[in-house]
Amino acid sequence: MMNLDVPGLGSYTDIAAYMNGVGAAARDASRAVARAGTLAKNLALARMAAAIRRDSALLQAENAADVEAARAAGHDAAFVDRLTLTPGSIEAMARGLEEIAALPDPAGEISDLKFRPSGIQVGMMRVPLGVIAIIYESRPNVTADAAGLCLKAGNATILRGGSEALRSNQAIARCVHEGLREAGLPEAAVQVVATTDRAAVGHLIVDEKHVDVVVPRGGKSLIERIARDARVPVIRHLDGVCHVYVDAHADLQAAIAIADNAKTQRYAPCNTMETLLVHADIASRVLPPLAAIYESKGVELRGCARSRALVPAMKAATEDDWYAEYLAPILAIRVVDSLDMAIDHIARYGSQHTDAIVTENHPNAMRFLREVDSSSVMVNASTRFADGFEYGLGAEIGISTNKLHARGPVGLEGLTSRKWIVLGTGQIRG
Amino acid sequence: MMNLDVPGLGSYTDIAAYMNGVGAAARDASRAVARAGTLAKNLALARMAAAIRRDSALLQAENAADVEAARAAGHDAAFVDRLTLTPGSIEAMARGLEEIAALPDPAGEISDLKFRPSGIQVGMMRVPLGVIAIIYESRPNVTADAAGLCLKAGNATILRGGSEALRSNQAIARCVHEGLREAGLPEAAVQVVATTDRAAVGHLIVDEKHVDVVVPRGGKSLIERIARDARVPVIRHLDGVCHVYVDAHADLQAAIAIADNAKTQRYAPCNTMETLLVHADIASRVLPPLAAIYESKGVELRGCARSRALVPAMKAATEDDWYAEYLAPILAIRVVDSLDMAIDHIARYGSQHTDAIVTENHPNAMRFLREVDSSSVMVNASTRFADGFEYGLGAEIGISTNKLHARGPVGLEGLTSRKWIVLGTGQIRG
Repeated sequence: MMNLDVPGLGSYTDIAAYMNGVGAAARDASRAVARAGTLAKNLALARMAAAIRRDSALLQAENAADVEAARAAGHDAAFVDRLTLTPGSIEAMARGLEEIAALPDPAGEISDLKFRPSGIQVGMMRVPLGVIAIIYESRPNVTADAAGLCLKAGNATILRGGSEALRSNQAIARCVHEGLREAGLPEAAVQVVATTDRAAVGHLIVDEKHVDVVVPRGGKSLIERIARDARVPVIRHLDGVCHVYVDAHADLQAAIAIADNAKTQRYAPCNTMETLLVHADIASRVLPPLAAIYESKGVELRGCARSRALVPAMKAATEDDWYAEYLAPILAIRVVDSLDMAIDHIARYGSQHTDAIVTENHPNAMRFLREVDSSSVMVNASTRFADGFEYGLGAEIGISTNKLHARGPVGLEGLTSRKWIVLGTGQIRG
Repeated sequence: MMNLDVPGLGSYTDIAAYMNGVGAAARDASRAVARAGTLAKNLALARMAAAIRRDSALLQAENAADVEAARAAGHDAAFVDRLTLTPGSIEAMARGLEEIAALPDPAGEISDLKFRPSGIQVGMMRVPLGVIAIIYESRPNVTADAAGLCLKAGNATILRGGSEALRSNQAIARCVHEGLREAGLPEAAVQVVATTDRAAVGHLIVDEKHVDVVVPRGGKSLIERIARDARVPVIRHLDGVCHVYVDAHADLQAAIAIADNAKTQRYAPCNTMETLLVHADIASRVLPPLAAIYESKGVELRGCARSRALVPAMKAATEDDWYAEYLAPILAIRVVDSLDMAIDHIARYGSQHTDAIVTENHPNAMRFLREVDSSSVMVNASTRFADGFEYGLGAEIGISTNKLHARGPVGLEGLTSRKWIVLGTGQIRG
């Protein structure tokens, strides 16, 4: 990259200096955003939404240039579809920002204040993380969504979208900056990286001085690469190998409805069931009717020997099937002899994302809840509920399969941290 | 390392294979510990304490061999002091385990269950992290403390203490294992790495498959090296460059008492004040009497020009003094013109550990609480209160200056995570 002129940041001749400038500006801005009151942040969000609505035609024109270039470069229809902004998707972006404005402000929330024998009062205050870098593919709507969520939580954001969406992202960023300006907040609170050079990502993920957390959104290989090379903490989501376990004590109708819904309501989401585990005592009553439903919906079944004895049309599953995240109308099925065997299977092959038990037996439900080590564990509900909106977070930046910090759907709280506060009246330590 | 025979793990001829075996055994054991009830964990802790008390003479004999070797190797008196087990320190270890048994069990705690419009109930369950590796220097009492805390939180632990304490640590581990056995828990729930080979640490900190979090305790260079090379998340504590800011609206007596206590109550702890900031309007009333107190206690003062104008005996501070963690009777002093300047100084030179304001002004107190981005922020109290026991955690594995996950003093909760739980009655997603 040569002679990149960046408004407000000057002219850079090398990517390292440019990214360092972006980082430093974000760090500075993060302090102003952290200080900002709820009114200012909500005003900024409302003005961003208004600017996006007003500039709908302009955004579509910029986006059309990106779309044309992507088509010319031979990207497939699904790619172009994700890249394309329509009047409807632009309105959805604006509405999304207004919905974020309506959420409670998590920053500054004080909790758990307790007096200690020394006379000091000790509690926690929820605080912004600081600077959040979002690395995502060519989906321009993420630009507004991510910027809005991070801002509401009190953070500065560095956005690095797919290079094919650069013009669209910069046009959206102009609306975002207008909103920030009108609320008296620094424009550097939301920066779109102004280069398509891939080295920019490499710089971001090791810039511990300026970046507090990286959130990669996109394909597994992107996320794995970032997680491997990052020095900055990563809120990441790898596989979603989700299970439904139909216990011996399951309600038959609930088991069939949940196993159907968890697989077939949508095939591509990460919270879709990929392996069905069925207790041997109930398998003969569950699997044949379920197989008929799956067959009618075109779902390919791959089962263990005992499953195939009950549903002969089923293909044989291999060891690889237990690890597979199909994201497609394919389902692995295994008959197990006990709750322990189900929990062991999930521990061995699962991805700690979302797993559900269907049972009427209280001790089994409680053991499953306690012992399955996944970001969401469910009793008598479809795995498809593992979602920030269904959980009431109001919005979601992604689903984390990390164990530390944010786990499961990540909303505003996941973009904050808690620090200790001490309120004294002159206490000293004896 | 050649032909290391490890009871229960077989014989290994290379360190990588040995450490992989340790990791795999810990991962297996972690599931049993996570499942264990409070009664079993508390029984194990009580039996460990009893075994340690009973074996006091034996522990002292093993420790004497370590101490003799350390002396022969030329380690200094402070090192030997930390290494030495006395009847008193052995009793303190036993009592520490009993105190951990008396703490509430955080694992399995369910909170925030709320009904959603879909009819599902969504909440959080506190769960163990899994496998925790503790890397520490030659302080054998850490072996019992860390094992006890991690066990109570439901985790398996891999302990890698300083090589000079290996015999002491293994003797303590035998008591720990006796307690685990008597409670029906696997011995691999607490493993002491049975080699002094430094490569063992290198293996532990990259073993993402078997280790969920690493807690290094010890000198800054050890922690920096681990943080740099680790692939596993690290709960770390780097510098403690703590500030007290005496606001223009401070109570004079409280300011003097807190500034004295924060510096002189003990010099070595990480929560000791290293830089005193004083508002210009009150400096002439605060600094001369404080300087007299510090002088009487032998504290060397290094000040800015305005501080020196008020206390001429003071040395001149250099830029390096603002960054310094002295851990000694030395104090940097700076006169500032405003709360903003104090907050800016702390943001620029501080280490995000613990900072305090002394003020009677409510808006200033609230701004300091909100805007100072440190793990503990205090109003009218000595920084020396930043401590797990003073905060009521009951026990402490260390103080974290991380922003994500545990921040500040880390007790049982910091050794756990929270997952989502969903309780349904057959709900499917529409």
